[in-house]
Amino acid sequence: MNLKERDKKFRQAFDKETQKIDKRLSNLLVGRKPGSLYDPCEYVLRSGGKHLRGYLVLLTTKAVGGKYSQSYNAALSVEILHSFTLVHDDIMDNADKRRGLPALHVKYDIDTAILAGDSLIAVAYKNLLKDCKNNIVDILSTFNQSVIDVCEGQSLDKEFEEKRNVTIPEYIEMINKKTGALIKMCCSIGAKIGDAEKGHIKALEKYGYNLGLAFQLKDDLLDIIGDTKHFGKNVGGDLIEGKKTYMLLKALELADKKDKIELNKIIRNSGIKKSEINKYKELYEKYGVFDIASEEIKKYTDHAIKALEIIPDSIEKEKLIWVANLMSERNK
Amino acid sequence: MNLKERDKKFRQAFDKETQKIDKRLSNLLVGRKPGSLYDPCEYVLRSGGKHLRGYLVLLTTKAVGGKYSQSYNAALSVEILHSFTLVHDDIMDNADKRRGLPALHVKYDIDTAILAGDSLIAVAYKNLLKDCKNNIVDILSTFNQSVIDVCEGQSLDKEFEEKRNVTIPEYIEMINKKTGALIKMCCSIGAKIGDAEKGHIKALEKYGYNLGLAFQLKDDLLDIIGDTKHFGKNVGGDLIEGKKTYMLLKALELADKKDKIELNKIIRNSGIKKSEINKYKELYEKYGVFDIASEEIKKYTDHAIKALEIIPDSIEKEKLIWVANLMSERNK
Repeated sequence: MNLKERDKKFRQAFDKETQKIDKRLSNLLVGRKPGSLYDPCEYVLRSGGKHLRGYLVLLTTKAVGGKYSQSYNAALSVEILHSFTLVHDDIMDNADKRRGLPALHVKYDIDTAILAGDSLIAVAYKNLLKDCKNNIVDILSTFNQSVIDVCEGQSLDKEFEEKRNVTIPEYIEMINKKTGALIKMCCSIGAKIGDAEKGHIKALEKYGYNLGLAFQLKDDLLDIIGDTKHFGKNVGGDLIEGKKTYMLLKALELADKKDKIELNKIIRNSGIKKSEINKYKELYEKYGVFDIASEEIKKYTDHAIKALEIIPDSIEKEKLIWVANLMSERNK
Repeated sequence: MNLKERDKKFRQAFDKETQKIDKRLSNLLVGRKPGSLYDPCEYVLRSGGKHLRGYLVLLTTKAVGGKYSQSYNAALSVEILHSFTLVHDDIMDNADKRRGLPALHVKYDIDTAILAGDSLIAVAYKNLLKDCKNNIVDILSTFNQSVIDVCEGQSLDKEFEEKRNVTIPEYIEMINKKTGALIKMCCSIGAKIGDAEKGHIKALEKYGYNLGLAFQLKDDLLDIIGDTKHFGKNVGGDLIEGKKTYMLLKALELADKKDKIELNKIIRNSGIKKSEINKYKELYEKYGVFDIASEEIKKYTDHAIKALEIIPDSIEKEKLIWVANLMSERNK
């Protein structure tokens, strides 16, 4: 089988499993009462998404010798937990849209979104508990720590809004907690449910850690060079909101005095006008920050793949490598 | 030892243990970073409270033959979980004060309160996991189900705000989920951590269920006949907000046509003016709803105590009985 054929096969397998996850999520809370709580939850769980996190749980379980069926509920669980973070983050970030649809607090209201998010946490634990047969405290602690990390990451993100000078290492720490922790956790619990040996758990956690960073940097990059149709959000949204992304921080690091003043306006004015996006895009290009970001994404992707070396060869290991490359090359 | 001396001893033991819980809660998150997340959490955990829920965990563990030390982290855990519910509920209920202090979203802002609440859930699980040595999945499922129940209860409470006709059984179902579920859970996990036999777990759950209902009805009653200094909230707050309490629903059931029109104004106008509180208090008195509510509280308290019959006699069993009586007779 040549590489192109293999990629096609892997893409089919990915689509098949994530569609299955999507279907199970969509049906999970149908008809539950009270409707004022579960209808909004259902709205979120039916709103699609890549389901990469759930797929990582399945792949890592199988990569260490387990079966998909051992971690299916855990796969749902991480997707539900991820949904919770989106719902509450969208309130805090004043985000109107999510996956091309109105955000939950826009569709309903803030109170409903707070409560729906809360119950999604509990629904996530409920599903995870179904797949806890061994290493129970370890699996739950890992899951729980990622909730703590996500909250810390979101808090740092909010702190950065007020902070004038954010360094790139600080930024990396923030996205590692806000996005990376959950992806790392997926790989960790997948491996632990599959009863992996310690070294393999560590390797898969390292894979997840690096994948998470690559994933978030790619997200930052797509926010400005992606197209609306593919990306599902408005291009340049981070600039409009004055977010301190990797690109902005890197550009600030490299820019001359004059350009630095321009770039600092993004921060000082808490964002720019839509009409100014191209001006800043050109500034970013001038200092090559898109290329630098792409190199960073490649670096983390390579680290992720390298971490898998000690995992015994298998089709799932190949799929994990494929996922890492897919994430770093995606355009949405 | 006569009854009065015994009560004094029990009060001292209660104070001693709950002060210990209070101290541990106060110090739990000191100095944790990021401060933008943990300072608000600390503010909540330092704001006091009766710590009845934590005490119930300890008592039930010991009542089935275990030791306080087995369930000390679980006791903290239920208090932390309770704090989470208060933080998010106060946002949704537009409550400005909590335990005599500014509510968290007033002291900080709504975003901070959402995120602090979220992380308190995870901190609660983290502490509970420390005391999970046996029956792990059962204990965590019980804990988790109470989170789901609390969310459902809060949702029903919000539904009732819009609903014209709420029956008393519907109201009881709502307070059972919103308040009772957590109290029942405390007794259930206390017993399970103590490795109790099934019949004893059931008995203690029944105790908790009835105690929870008595507790919430008493809260409703104190809202209108308590005094501000003791109660820590504004007297008549439920009337001002137009809340459908047990008293209001009972009064509507019993009132003649003319008075029913007056009472319905509370609902139609989504609350009354502060100056009207006494008028409605008199209406409630006219139909004897304070006495009826007190009888209901007594009924649930008696059910709670009766449920303990099959638990072997011990000082902790006596303390559980004492707690039930204390809660139904409290004035704050």
